[in-house]
Amino acid sequence: MKRVGRFYGVGLGPGDPELVSLKAARILSEVPVIFVPKGGRESRALSILKGIVGEEKEIMELSFPMLEEDEGKWERAASRIWERLSRGEDCAFAVEGDPLLYGTFTPILSIFRHRFPEVEIKVIPGITSLSAAAASIPLPLARREERLAVLPAFYEKNGLEEVLQKFDTVAFFKVHRSLERILNILERMGLSGSCFLVEEVSTGRERVIGDMEEMRRAKPGYFSLLLVRRAR
Amino acid sequence: MKRVGRFYGVGLGPGDPELVSLKAARILSEVPVIFVPKGGRESRALSILKGIVGEEKEIMELSFPMLEEDEGKWERAASRIWERLSRGEDCAFAVEGDPLLYGTFTPILSIFRHRFPEVEIKVIPGITSLSAAAASIPLPLARREERLAVLPAFYEKNGLEEVLQKFDTVAFFKVHRSLERILNILERMGLSGSCFLVEEVSTGRERVIGDMEEMRRAKPGYFSLLLVRRAR
Repeated sequence: MKRVGRFYGVGLGPGDPELVSLKAARILSEVPVIFVPKGGRESRALSILKGIVGEEKEIMELSFPMLEEDEGKWERAASRIWERLSRGEDCAFAVEGDPLLYGTFTPILSIFRHRFPEVEIKVIPGITSLSAAAASIPLPLARREERLAVLPAFYEKNGLEEVLQKFDTVAFFKVHRSLERILNILERMGLSGSCFLVEEVSTGRERVIGDMEEMRRAKPGYFSLLLVRRAR
Repeated sequence: MKRVGRFYGVGLGPGDPELVSLKAARILSEVPVIFVPKGGRESRALSILKGIVGEEKEIMELSFPMLEEDEGKWERAASRIWERLSRGEDCAFAVEGDPLLYGTFTPILSIFRHRFPEVEIKVIPGITSLSAAAASIPLPLARREERLAVLPAFYEKNGLEEVLQKFDTVAFFKVHRSLERILNILERMGLSGSCFLVEEVSTGRERVIGDMEEMRRAKPGYFSLLLVRRAR
């Protein structure tokens, strides 16, 4: 029976290639082929990878849809990975941050579970942009009896006030298109002085903004996070 | 003017020494002295450290209280670190997981901010036990429009049902003394089939339990996490 390759979902961390784990670095150096997601913008995963693996490594970029309606693209990406696994080659799919927290790895994982259940999947966790953003400020995410909520700002329409009341720290991912709406809510709730916008965390372009007016002018990009902390 | 040492809060990750970041490993090798928290049980941080730094490194264990009433112990620990910093030595305080998520680093950070504001503090984020637990199963923490809540089980008395209804994934930290109470709630809510208990994640003693009856018999230790995921 022909051996099928092992499939690694590897977290590359928030941006700084030095924030990759020793294990991720080892696995990326061992596998013959690495897949990375290619977004509409520059590929963050690719720029981190360049700081870790040598020039001779085969790196394949996979285009992904931002919209779920385009489901076929995930299937095609999974098929390209399967093509290599079925030849007996171990493959890594390397993504920024942690593979399982808003990562492009999660839809691939679910496709593999259904279509290719014979593939052994190993996930290597990564440092999240959330931990890195808190470290940059630095600001505790949670102490002792405190609660932390992680929300996808873009999709949050209702109930934000309630979450902000009941959780000590709230982290908004995908905040770039929803920043003004969320800042308005925070201002109304008297939380203007309790929030930080962190852009491009741990990279050379990192910016940490704690001033509400400056945040309103910031026009943050895709790699932005808003941290709100009520607790002292 | 005498130079004061720089103070690093370093995340060691969930347990496997290979899940430390390259940056954490570098800083731990560079600083002359490393402090680690010493709990009532075996020191997880110390066992991770032994896998990273050599025998010749000076490692100082600091005893910490589990109860906040014992506030003086934090102050004494901070004083011992300050003693070395004030001699111009760079120091690291190395903790399991991420320093800012339920870490023993957070009270130390707040004492330094107030008592020793002249000390430059750098936090090196770490892979959380949450990311590592999700990777072990593997189970997505959040996709697209989904919400994640992180709760300290031990302190949660009311309102759990509401959080479980409004969040797609709920992670309970500090679950070892509250497991039965939380499992009862999950059973009442029809979520028995949607939870995993993960003990000692990424270590040789790791255990992942998805069966409710087995969880009830598990008697988990301090390093345990319960993940509940409603979403498919």
